[in-house]
Amino acid sequence: MATIAVLGAGIMATALTFPLTENGHKVNLVGTHLDRDIIESIQTTGIHPDLGLKVNDKVVAYQLEDAEEAFEGADVAMSGVNSFGVHWAGEHLATLVKPGMKILNVTKGMEADDDGTLHLLPDVLRSFFDEELAESVTWNAIVGPSIAGEVAVHHDTCVIFAGEDQDSLDYLADLFRTDYYHVWTSTDFRGCEIGAATKNIYAFAAGLGAGLLRKEGKQDDRYVRFNYNAAVFGQGQTELRQFMTLLGGQPQTADGLAGVGDMYVTSAGGRNVKAGTFVGEGVPFSEVRDCLMKGVTLEGVQAIRVIGGALEPLTERGLIKPEDFPLCRYLYQIIEKDAPLEMPWEKFFGGMK
Amino acid sequence: MATIAVLGAGIMATALTFPLTENGHKVNLVGTHLDRDIIESIQTTGIHPDLGLKVNDKVVAYQLEDAEEAFEGADVAMSGVNSFGVHWAGEHLATLVKPGMKILNVTKGMEADDDGTLHLLPDVLRSFFDEELAESVTWNAIVGPSIAGEVAVHHDTCVIFAGEDQDSLDYLADLFRTDYYHVWTSTDFRGCEIGAATKNIYAFAAGLGAGLLRKEGKQDDRYVRFNYNAAVFGQGQTELRQFMTLLGGQPQTADGLAGVGDMYVTSAGGRNVKAGTFVGEGVPFSEVRDCLMKGVTLEGVQAIRVIGGALEPLTERGLIKPEDFPLCRYLYQIIEKDAPLEMPWEKFFGGMK
Repeated sequence: MATIAVLGAGIMATALTFPLTENGHKVNLVGTHLDRDIIESIQTTGIHPDLGLKVNDKVVAYQLEDAEEAFEGADVAMSGVNSFGVHWAGEHLATLVKPGMKILNVTKGMEADDDGTLHLLPDVLRSFFDEELAESVTWNAIVGPSIAGEVAVHHDTCVIFAGEDQDSLDYLADLFRTDYYHVWTSTDFRGCEIGAATKNIYAFAAGLGAGLLRKEGKQDDRYVRFNYNAAVFGQGQTELRQFMTLLGGQPQTADGLAGVGDMYVTSAGGRNVKAGTFVGEGVPFSEVRDCLMKGVTLEGVQAIRVIGGALEPLTERGLIKPEDFPLCRYLYQIIEKDAPLEMPWEKFFGGMK
Repeated sequence: MATIAVLGAGIMATALTFPLTENGHKVNLVGTHLDRDIIESIQTTGIHPDLGLKVNDKVVAYQLEDAEEAFEGADVAMSGVNSFGVHWAGEHLATLVKPGMKILNVTKGMEADDDGTLHLLPDVLRSFFDEELAESVTWNAIVGPSIAGEVAVHHDTCVIFAGEDQDSLDYLADLFRTDYYHVWTSTDFRGCEIGAATKNIYAFAAGLGAGLLRKEGKQDDRYVRFNYNAAVFGQGQTELRQFMTLLGGQPQTADGLAGVGDMYVTSAGGRNVKAGTFVGEGVPFSEVRDCLMKGVTLEGVQAIRVIGGALEPLTERGLIKPEDFPLCRYLYQIIEKDAPLEMPWEKFFGGMK
């Protein structure tokens, strides 16, 4: 029996407690300062209010002030904080994590320097650790197509545990594997993280076609806009693979679960797709952000802002060509400049020719 | 102004008359013996009954007995016959096509020899031509994510015109390009045809998750089976790329429109997905074939039968490994042996490890 301490009590971190506890492991779930009501609910009723489900008895919920107790003696330290809280998580984990623990990260995203240099979040997390501690632990992450609630209700889910150390990956995979939670491992840690971060960009784009259809009043017509969505998906997948190469992942990691599969599930629905749908309907993005979806966490939009914003400096530095990543560049114009929906088809797939 | 003669008056061939006639070209649409009612309807009312739309005036509909007149002096000979009619189409085109015409094929699929050797349909079509005629024409095809009705109602559609001769491709693309019909060209003719044929395999698989959900009575639940569908899509995409390499296409053709994009749209709905849904619900495939969907054209099922059936002889010949193409092999068991739904997850993505 292992003990897994988790920082962040969001739906994904909480969903992962199901396979863990069903395998007989103990999970100490620590809420952030934003999770106080969630933790109180679990402590009093066992129910995670956002997930809408009762967690298993072997999950012990802790408020943030009790985090040290929760992490004491843990074998695995999980970070379930979303990409907006990664600095906060880094600061806290740097004090909570003890030498020798295995770190397992579910946060996805990137950060950029002013010159466009992109950093993966595990590297950002790590930057808060002192070097000796950072070296004494192993760094791992979960990637792949995984809607949290589906894991929690035992629906088949295929994921990749990625990291640099195969032994750690095998150990972690063994803790989680059940008859519905299927785990592969990969030592292309960078590639897996690149796929996980960049696929969010294209989830926003996946909503545009549905919005356009609604704007046209054709959403109940016999012929909709699958062709539109498929072309956008195809261009997104092409760019995801280009990011893989640009940022140092293995190209084949863009196939299967960590690339195309994850993009497929992320494009199937959720908040980022919904934001894209509003833009497709003709709402300027600033209005989506400030009114229609005010306060909603949009990791896809954040990915467009960070990664899309890095493309211009990367182009100026000659690392990419002006014609590379036309969809991501256009999405950046939507997010930052309220560009209207005029898909730049002619720039897709290497330029129309 | 060019004249395009089309053999086969199905929905795809007919949808393609919209961009052509809007560009000022003349289309002679010839029905097969199965299309008599369609042609009569177009001749008398202008309406294609299956498409549910009135075709443009520049489309002239011909019954099969008037095919010679329709093809006389045409610049382009299109084959719009589905994959079940490719021998019939080959026999007829071999007499209708005149030297120097450009052939443009929308039929997709493969045929297999007993030893598993797979033949692309353009090659099958060509085998009916005498060599001198075959050499005097150019062979081209349309691939990519394209639901016929969406083209007909002017919804943005991105496709690839593939062939061996760039000049022919440029000529053909120019005939079709409009502000909604976006055409790229590719001289990876083989790769494009491989993607078009193999993606149909995985459309059937795309229905299984929805069927399973219905069997469980969970189709209206908060948590459905996107994770399941995404893993199946990811494995399908991985196998599509493997087919690309195995059969002599360029690996990168599995990206974008001719591979992933086409698979995405084919998985979004249609008859093959519906057949998969029944199997997911627990109906043996033989019952789907003989009762629930009796008489319905299922090109995905046909692709599984032909390509899936070739995998065993190809394995025996040592051209592929027993662990290659686990999803396609399993789908073949469903189609030919009424195998129940037990997804072989552990074999996916190179085997669970």
